[in-house]
Amino acid sequence: MKVEPKTLPGFMELLPQEQILFNQMKEKIKNSYERFGFLPINTPIIEKAEVLLAKAGGETEKQIYRFNKGENDLALRFDLTVPLAKYVTEYYGSLSFPFRRYQIGKVYRGERPQKGRFREFYQCDIDIIGDGELSIINDAEIPSIIYATIKELGFEDFTICINNRKILNGLFKELNQEAISVDIMRIIDKLEKIGEENVIASLKDLQVPQKAIDDIMTFIKIEGNNDEKIAKLEALNFKNDVFNTGLQELKDVIKYVRTFGVPETHFRVDLTIARGLDYYTGTVYETFLNEYREVGSVCSGGRYDNLAEYYTDRKLPGVGVSIGLTRLFYKLNELQAVRETQKSIAKVLVAPMTEEIEEALRIASYLRNEGINTEVYLENKKIKAKFKYADKLQIPYVITIGEDEIKSGTVSLKNMENGDQETLKIEEVAKKLK
Amino acid sequence: MKVEPKTLPGFMELLPQEQILFNQMKEKIKNSYERFGFLPINTPIIEKAEVLLAKAGGETEKQIYRFNKGENDLALRFDLTVPLAKYVTEYYGSLSFPFRRYQIGKVYRGERPQKGRFREFYQCDIDIIGDGELSIINDAEIPSIIYATIKELGFEDFTICINNRKILNGLFKELNQEAISVDIMRIIDKLEKIGEENVIASLKDLQVPQKAIDDIMTFIKIEGNNDEKIAKLEALNFKNDVFNTGLQELKDVIKYVRTFGVPETHFRVDLTIARGLDYYTGTVYETFLNEYREVGSVCSGGRYDNLAEYYTDRKLPGVGVSIGLTRLFYKLNELQAVRETQKSIAKVLVAPMTEEIEEALRIASYLRNEGINTEVYLENKKIKAKFKYADKLQIPYVITIGEDEIKSGTVSLKNMENGDQETLKIEEVAKKLK
Repeated sequence: MKVEPKTLPGFMELLPQEQILFNQMKEKIKNSYERFGFLPINTPIIEKAEVLLAKAGGETEKQIYRFNKGENDLALRFDLTVPLAKYVTEYYGSLSFPFRRYQIGKVYRGERPQKGRFREFYQCDIDIIGDGELSIINDAEIPSIIYATIKELGFEDFTICINNRKILNGLFKELNQEAISVDIMRIIDKLEKIGEENVIASLKDLQVPQKAIDDIMTFIKIEGNNDEKIAKLEALNFKNDVFNTGLQELKDVIKYVRTFGVPETHFRVDLTIARGLDYYTGTVYETFLNEYREVGSVCSGGRYDNLAEYYTDRKLPGVGVSIGLTRLFYKLNELQAVRETQKSIAKVLVAPMTEEIEEALRIASYLRNEGINTEVYLENKKIKAKFKYADKLQIPYVITIGEDEIKSGTVSLKNMENGDQETLKIEEVAKKLK
Repeated sequence: MKVEPKTLPGFMELLPQEQILFNQMKEKIKNSYERFGFLPINTPIIEKAEVLLAKAGGETEKQIYRFNKGENDLALRFDLTVPLAKYVTEYYGSLSFPFRRYQIGKVYRGERPQKGRFREFYQCDIDIIGDGELSIINDAEIPSIIYATIKELGFEDFTICINNRKILNGLFKELNQEAISVDIMRIIDKLEKIGEENVIASLKDLQVPQKAIDDIMTFIKIEGNNDEKIAKLEALNFKNDVFNTGLQELKDVIKYVRTFGVPETHFRVDLTIARGLDYYTGTVYETFLNEYREVGSVCSGGRYDNLAEYYTDRKLPGVGVSIGLTRLFYKLNELQAVRETQKSIAKVLVAPMTEEIEEALRIASYLRNEGINTEVYLENKKIKAKFKYADKLQIPYVITIGEDEIKSGTVSLKNMENGDQETLKIEEVAKKLK
């Protein structure tokens, strides 16, 4: 009896040609994060359930993969933030602050499977954690990291949207709605998804008075370029501290984002950005590819006052963003919008005739020593099959060796894209392929 | 009530400085595998339990992490070979053969935790899978990959031990012990661990006759260089096919390993290498760092006739090796034998005085655009604290900017290793750090 070898639904598993593209994106994100000096950590996928669930509730608790092994109540991590909180608290004494870490890894959520939703997916997170305090300039560095990273992924036309939740909270205070500010925020956050009318209807359901709804809608529709929007916010002349602190923070962030060299075309004060999570306390970010707006935000995050309040009394403020890589890749791939830099692993396939196998092995070893990714076709097949193999794997060059070539110490190099064929010394091949 | 943030025992979690070293090793292995044209795949960590356990039994079944989610009987992968078998069978029609794949990922075994044993650990696997058949030259390419990979990890003094199980099986046949050949193999495999006397005692326990034990011990102690050993094996003049097929394969492997350019100093016919698993059917490999013999084999594997017999009737022979990276890193780190190429992520820390912050941000952005990993210290601390931070993170250079420097468009660059300080234009700094 054979077992049917079937991958679970909701788990992304790619063919090698797509995996190459996926890995390129992952690698570019990693390189970009390291460019900004973030340190790598790699926490376990399994943790004690009580550690992972210290803060969670509701949806998280339902979706989490939780199980017993021996006497241990275990669970799979559902994000990289909770493990970061654990890590910073556990190793506090050994870390240097501000602690700038990145982590790229798989997380698990047992969601109802549907198209484009995954139960196992990569998150690519950066966070900067302060010990007691953390300068607002960090909030301005984040957009410069987003800018560099999305550019690295090959996109030019995108917008980083920036807001500050204190500004929204301050507004709600002015409108005497501060008791339900988190709920209002969650509704505003859905503006793009559900549209203005539904936002208004939801606010009514929440018992927000008509006047306050009007003011909220007027407020989030404040128009203009970044400086004009800030001028209009100042002109409101609100007296409450929360609002004015938020406004000052936003002004500082915008000022330093410019200093970091992010072009004015690529960031925008957007008063509709609220983020659903109650976790954020200040600056918030979302990032949109303007040509592929349907993908949703490709990089989101914000500032929080307390990373690890469920584990420690220590105040650990932070700011960070995350890229949901699995979903992003899935969507871009569907739109044929992945910007690949290379389609194959091997740069060249050495395709020997059987009699020339030893020469072929020597040539392959030479090229590999020169740092060129090289494959030799070792099976005893017709030359046509070997070229077909290179073609299917999208290997850009094929080397063949004939008797004449062996005599003259040369090889024949075929460019698989345009069909050009040259007879070259192997040193020349190495030079050409590098 | 706070929850204690504690990582589970048996799960490796590193501080950033060690994680940097770990990631370097992982990256080098990946690059080396790609140099040989292996394609990446990334299978889920969770699979259906029946898929993972199709072939397993005994220890595996006891150690596996298995649990239910909804109606699904799930498990975490305990190696990368079973997922490969699943993958090749599931996507057979879309793959090109020979299928050369690498996978580097975490696997899970709920072993009793003890020093140097991990429940979550990285395996770094390469395999070459043939469709129906696979040339013996592939068995010779594997040592050339091991050679390049271990060199890439910074080691010079190591030995790749090569044997062929058909030779041992042929011997056991000559001695009329073929019915228990797998058990004998498992005992021989422990020779280095338990010593000659215990091997003999274990063979006696197995009811192997004294004469056969003597012959086995004489056999596995055949001495000489590679050619001498092969000559001695030929001189035995055994008539059985299994032995002679194995001997011919070994001769071919040795011949082509040389052609691939592996120096004679770095590989050795070793008749004691048997490998515990009954899975292997031909060539087998183990690799030892001669200075750190106590680490055990750092890269092992072999040839097998049937990758996926539990899923398909299709004959899928293969050959592959694996590096158990988590354990290897742990051991090398303990011996202070990790060969790092770089100790920090950031190449330079920009440490501004508060008044110079904008100039510092511009300088950091300039260096990042030049491809240099750069961090800016943004917190309002004394200059001494900033240098201490760079020191703790082992960042090799620190840039400070004074009023004079701003006026003259220069910065002060300090080499943290030797204390040298220079005043340079920022373009010169970029050139120097690249």
